[in-house]
Amino acid sequence: MALIVQKYGGTSVADTDRIKSVAERVIRTKEAGNEVVVVVSAMAGETNRLSGLAAELCESPREREMDVILSTGEQVTSGLLCIALEAMGQRARSFTGSQVGIVTDSSHSRARIQKIDDRSVRDALGRGEVVVVAGFQGADGEGNITTLGRGGSDTSAVAVAAALEADVCEIYTDVDGVFTTDPGVVPSARKLDRVSYDEMLEMSSLGAKVLQTRSVLFAKRYNVPLRVRSSFNDNEGTLVTREEDIMEALVVSGVTYNRDEAKITVVGVPDQPGVAAKLLVPITDCNVIVDMIVQNIGSDGHTDLTFTVPKGDFRKALACAEETARGLGARKVISDDRIAKVSIVGMGMKNHAGVASRMFDLLSREGINIQMISTSEIKVSCVIDDKYTELAVRALHEGFELGKEPARAETF
Amino acid sequence: MALIVQKYGGTSVADTDRIKSVAERVIRTKEAGNEVVVVVSAMAGETNRLSGLAAELCESPREREMDVILSTGEQVTSGLLCIALEAMGQRARSFTGSQVGIVTDSSHSRARIQKIDDRSVRDALGRGEVVVVAGFQGADGEGNITTLGRGGSDTSAVAVAAALEADVCEIYTDVDGVFTTDPGVVPSARKLDRVSYDEMLEMSSLGAKVLQTRSVLFAKRYNVPLRVRSSFNDNEGTLVTREEDIMEALVVSGVTYNRDEAKITVVGVPDQPGVAAKLLVPITDCNVIVDMIVQNIGSDGHTDLTFTVPKGDFRKALACAEETARGLGARKVISDDRIAKVSIVGMGMKNHAGVASRMFDLLSREGINIQMISTSEIKVSCVIDDKYTELAVRALHEGFELGKEPARAETF
Repeated sequence: MALIVQKYGGTSVADTDRIKSVAERVIRTKEAGNEVVVVVSAMAGETNRLSGLAAELCESPREREMDVILSTGEQVTSGLLCIALEAMGQRARSFTGSQVGIVTDSSHSRARIQKIDDRSVRDALGRGEVVVVAGFQGADGEGNITTLGRGGSDTSAVAVAAALEADVCEIYTDVDGVFTTDPGVVPSARKLDRVSYDEMLEMSSLGAKVLQTRSVLFAKRYNVPLRVRSSFNDNEGTLVTREEDIMEALVVSGVTYNRDEAKITVVGVPDQPGVAAKLLVPITDCNVIVDMIVQNIGSDGHTDLTFTVPKGDFRKALACAEETARGLGARKVISDDRIAKVSIVGMGMKNHAGVASRMFDLLSREGINIQMISTSEIKVSCVIDDKYTELAVRALHEGFELGKEPARAETF
Repeated sequence: MALIVQKYGGTSVADTDRIKSVAERVIRTKEAGNEVVVVVSAMAGETNRLSGLAAELCESPREREMDVILSTGEQVTSGLLCIALEAMGQRARSFTGSQVGIVTDSSHSRARIQKIDDRSVRDALGRGEVVVVAGFQGADGEGNITTLGRGGSDTSAVAVAAALEADVCEIYTDVDGVFTTDPGVVPSARKLDRVSYDEMLEMSSLGAKVLQTRSVLFAKRYNVPLRVRSSFNDNEGTLVTREEDIMEALVVSGVTYNRDEAKITVVGVPDQPGVAAKLLVPITDCNVIVDMIVQNIGSDGHTDLTFTVPKGDFRKALACAEETARGLGARKVISDDRIAKVSIVGMGMKNHAGVASRMFDLLSREGINIQMISTSEIKVSCVIDDKYTELAVRALHEGFELGKEPARAETF
């Protein structure tokens, strides 16, 4: 008998017919002899409806009260799924984040889980009940309702799976799993059977929208096997697991892209120790998350510093950079918000030289100029002109032969 | 400085514009130097929307899960009102039923309040915050969400007012107060300035829909002054209070009617001790609430017994009565679901003879036949043919001169 945590996203519970389908799948899993804990999101559209009501009252509503309002979306789904399960003869019990014992800090709208008291869930499982947990939420030490931020239901599911030492945490979504790249851009994109936590982390943070980064970090830390699969079919999906559990690491597992960033370059800033910090600290102080940072070797005592920020924060960051640049005596500030970041990700890269240069070569063959480069152990990212995004993704996907049967590290 | 509890019903918080109006009124009350606790209902239509979702999944959904689902309606309103208050510069804090410390028994969908731990509310008031409580809900001893049943937000408000020993509990609704009768039937109906708890109880249970019976019982038991008033103007409304606080009791304060009952008569049942119990116990065992019961004096060892039940339970009760009647050897069972109950209510009735006979006289002058009569200390009810309802109400309202300046007990 395995203990399985299943998480269903908003599109999987968008209406009562889909909730019935979810109930059927849960019952099949239970009847196969497993204990089942289900974590649900709000019905698709509900979170936006509730946010819209609050927005009619205030531009920047107090986060404590937003959490009180938004957490009801998942609570409703949890009750509805229990009703569907009971109507099919399966005993079930819903839990809010507070009831399930998810204790968080008090950072409303982006709370961090501190601990989970899983006794009541274990009691319910012991009685043969299916446990249905409202995702995305918890309560702080004083009982205030908190929410976990964007993609929080994934994090709830992984955290509950970790606390219960579940055998697997299944993340149900509207796609078949994790793909070598966006099938919308490259029709020959192939579903991956397995990826490592680290590969998944790079893919998540680089723009693949299947799993929320924090939930993958959590899964890695507590060694929770994740399975990403579709709620609309019975395909196996993709297993996200420890590197050790992946027999043959792919040199390149996937190609991702992100068009949500903009680029700012401070030109001709005096090349002194600490100048990067002087430029970037004021920007991060404005709550802007700086992603890539490149500083070129200086000449004649001056240097150029380029960094990227989310497009939504572009104006704010630019104004801030211009003011700081003036103070530092920089020559000028130039910027570009029509850029894209394309990346290749793969565990096998660690032990294989030449992957980055092959990427640069593939791009140059298409006449695509590389504006910035950033690398990690298992990833290479290039910033290019936004208009070449699809061309670059297709060239890399084909060049690394990702549409074909896996090119294993051994045979590369 | 007074402590005022204000309760706003679903129509008063139906959209964000109305929620803003509520916020303005709350702030006016606060700025007049009072401490304010607000109890809110779900936005009009929300409870039906949620019930509808559940009904798509199951005809008789489990009540525990219905409470989980329905309680979110009030929770959303509480958060929205706090956001509106904060946007206007007034610090506020929302509480769910569980957070406010309303402990109930475990009777889901109709839970009874057992105690209120008001410490967190007092703390918030002490910090100068307006407290906004989600009505209609509590939590049982194990932390399960419960709801208080129909009109439960009134009960929440009165219970919180009782626990805090509030100076007054204001019930905001879409009418100006308690009227001598339904202004839709009698345009000259007059708003009452004061009524006693007992009069209000009779009026509530007889069909006047302003206040829920349980909340009035609660207010009477804990001596909480209630003020029923409109959320759309600044009129004083009606004060519901102790009999002692009403200087001059009206002989008749109001005329009410109820068309939601049906009548069942068991004819020619052997006139033996215990026969009424034998007939009625099986019906109440089916969870049917029997209202009026009349047994005529028997002749030749047989008697007739008539009782009324809610129309929704009519078929069930009739089938049950027919079976029991057969067993008891009764002659036949006749029934009628086109009846109405019209009633007069007034504290002054206690000390004034002839009120009932005046009522009968007024009805007979209109040619209205009385089918059943039931009386209490402060009320007389008659069952009549349903088609005469409006005629009877108008005749009684005019006959007892309720549209004119109060006919005081002294001068009657």
